[in-house]
Amino acid sequence: MPKISKKGILMPPSPIRKLVPYATAAKKRGIKVIHLNIGQPDIETPEVVRNAIKNFDYSVLSYLNSEGSEKYRQKLTQYYKSVGATVEAHQIIETTGGSEALLFGFMSTLDAGDEIIIPEPFYANYNGFATAGDIKVVPITSSIETGFALPSIEEFEKKITSRTKAILICNPNNPTGYLYSKEELDRLKEIVLKHDLFLFADEVYREFVYEGKKHISILSMPELSQHAIVVDSISKRYSACGARLGALITQNQEVLDTVLKFAQARLSSPTYSEVAAEAALETPASYFEMVNKEYISRRDTLVSLLNKIEGVTCPLPGGAFYAMAQLPVEDTDVFCQWMLEHFNWNGTTVMMAPAAGFYATPGLGKNEVRIAYVLENKEIEEAIKCLEEGLKAFKNQSQNSN
Amino acid sequence: MPKISKKGILMPPSPIRKLVPYATAAKKRGIKVIHLNIGQPDIETPEVVRNAIKNFDYSVLSYLNSEGSEKYRQKLTQYYKSVGATVEAHQIIETTGGSEALLFGFMSTLDAGDEIIIPEPFYANYNGFATAGDIKVVPITSSIETGFALPSIEEFEKKITSRTKAILICNPNNPTGYLYSKEELDRLKEIVLKHDLFLFADEVYREFVYEGKKHISILSMPELSQHAIVVDSISKRYSACGARLGALITQNQEVLDTVLKFAQARLSSPTYSEVAAEAALETPASYFEMVNKEYISRRDTLVSLLNKIEGVTCPLPGGAFYAMAQLPVEDTDVFCQWMLEHFNWNGTTVMMAPAAGFYATPGLGKNEVRIAYVLENKEIEEAIKCLEEGLKAFKNQSQNSN
Repeated sequence: MPKISKKGILMPPSPIRKLVPYATAAKKRGIKVIHLNIGQPDIETPEVVRNAIKNFDYSVLSYLNSEGSEKYRQKLTQYYKSVGATVEAHQIIETTGGSEALLFGFMSTLDAGDEIIIPEPFYANYNGFATAGDIKVVPITSSIETGFALPSIEEFEKKITSRTKAILICNPNNPTGYLYSKEELDRLKEIVLKHDLFLFADEVYREFVYEGKKHISILSMPELSQHAIVVDSISKRYSACGARLGALITQNQEVLDTVLKFAQARLSSPTYSEVAAEAALETPASYFEMVNKEYISRRDTLVSLLNKIEGVTCPLPGGAFYAMAQLPVEDTDVFCQWMLEHFNWNGTTVMMAPAAGFYATPGLGKNEVRIAYVLENKEIEEAIKCLEEGLKAFKNQSQNSN
Repeated sequence: MPKISKKGILMPPSPIRKLVPYATAAKKRGIKVIHLNIGQPDIETPEVVRNAIKNFDYSVLSYLNSEGSEKYRQKLTQYYKSVGATVEAHQIIETTGGSEALLFGFMSTLDAGDEIIIPEPFYANYNGFATAGDIKVVPITSSIETGFALPSIEEFEKKITSRTKAILICNPNNPTGYLYSKEELDRLKEIVLKHDLFLFADEVYREFVYEGKKHISILSMPELSQHAIVVDSISKRYSACGARLGALITQNQEVLDTVLKFAQARLSSPTYSEVAAEAALETPASYFEMVNKEYISRRDTLVSLLNKIEGVTCPLPGGAFYAMAQLPVEDTDVFCQWMLEHFNWNGTTVMMAPAAGFYATPGLGKNEVRIAYVLENKEIEEAIKCLEEGLKAFKNQSQNSN
């Protein structure tokens, strides 16, 4: 029998999805599973999007241009202007989700063995795109004690080698919810200019910032024009994850030319999705006000309830819709699976993403989980009560089995 | 300024799309450009597909399962049964187009430096997916003289090294239109079993076979159960290229497990597209009869007209909707660009795909073009008349400039 590739063996399973079989089995046993594991918002997709698809008129469902239609990209420049970034239409390449933007960005800038520095914990799927290209992810640890702030310049410089080609941040951050400040971005600017690196920023949660804070796009930093590569997606902004429509944006022409070659190889992004994305640009401001108000309320519910549980710590996230919590257990991989396999509280259990998969350094994050607050307050309250009972029961059964 | 990757430099531009800027410029000058360069069918997408999208009811556009919904994959097993292949739902992984199936298939079975043998000329974008993984494409030449039949076992064995992991065929073939016979597939079976290789078959043109010939899926060959990996897509079958919905199908569990990890990293295929694909399975048989009749008529028009032009040779394709033609010019890259930049016949010109980009061996295919017959007979007639006039004018201007 022929053998699979070494990279296929090395490829890590998704920490967000790997417990799915246990959740499925629990549901088959009649247990209600509250999903805190995946960033699938429950917020309605804007009506303008749904109407555009209903009214989309065509006789042949054709390919798009590989880079996306001129019309849509022209409209996008207005959107980017509204968030403080001046880009031209040709500097935007449409991609199939932010995922593909990352893949194409990596392929275009990093060769096998090249290194990319990423503050950990980080969105676990970055590993997948790196593995595809045999790219080495070099983690730099941010910790729950500082609320996951950016590590110091000194820490970054310790990690830079002759193979370092890029730094990648996610801002606001998935999984930590951390929003990088102007000062932190300036620090990154200094490093990438000094060492001539690319700076990738995954800004798909750009709209989700709280307490009147402001998200700063790296596209708004003129000194970074040849270094900045932004990964974007409509998934979270318009609660349209299933569209799989994103973009890679850079002012570096060589990168654009190269990304376009990868984009041409896969022909185009999905046509229905571009129709949805173009319509989404007409979403009224009131939608975002409603959504942000809702997320702030959920976040506050979640974080305050979590911190009330004995032994649980959860810093207040400044953006996105994720929180990282430290639990009083040794290994959240074991605990999260146990919650699905062996526990229920009044017929309900909770699915969370064990955090170790968001760290590249072995051993880190073992007592942490990522929680996505994409459910209504009532469900969050139920979930956290259930988690609290689960923690008690887990402790008891661990003691009994000793 | 930071540098792009070496693989980004090596990445070949698409021979199908690289002349697009010249076509765009010609259109801006008021020239009508007849597109024979791209396999974008003009046939209507089935009404069941369009209705399903119009009637798709949802409030949140959510992610799908990474491998596609159970319901859709269950239905697909019936479809595969109808084409002679027995597969189970879990042996099908939904992908974003056939392109992604190829990418995931390559990533799961080939490491950097590993070799895949592909009969040339081949679909040029295979190069792109190989380049992404630093995989070496080893071409084995099929020639226009034999109508692009499969080379002999001896020829294959000359190419096999310790790094050979797989063979890839496209059946019916893009760009040649060649349909592999049972005898040829048995020959491939013998080779892959003897050398323990994977056999990839891109079968996206499965439905387009003519003269009562029969397409044979490698999924119907039980001895290949652990070797066969099929790449599929709804793009051509239902004239739904813009859906970007495909599948990777294999009975090799290790490959399935590995492909799933890559699929999970990008979360899911586009949701609208799965709705379209599921509906497409209800397309009536009459649709395919109509379509095949139409393509046979177009093919016959194209091939007979081409062979009437002095110095032009075009073998009769047995399937798909492409033909390869040899033209009486030295370099079709130059000629095809000249047709767009400097020629028109009554305000019309023709865009074709220069064939050199479909060969991996340098120097081959320089006097060939790939022509997609995805236009009505009247347009094909106009295009070939225009090509004939273009060839004359090109010859004259070449002689004058000497």
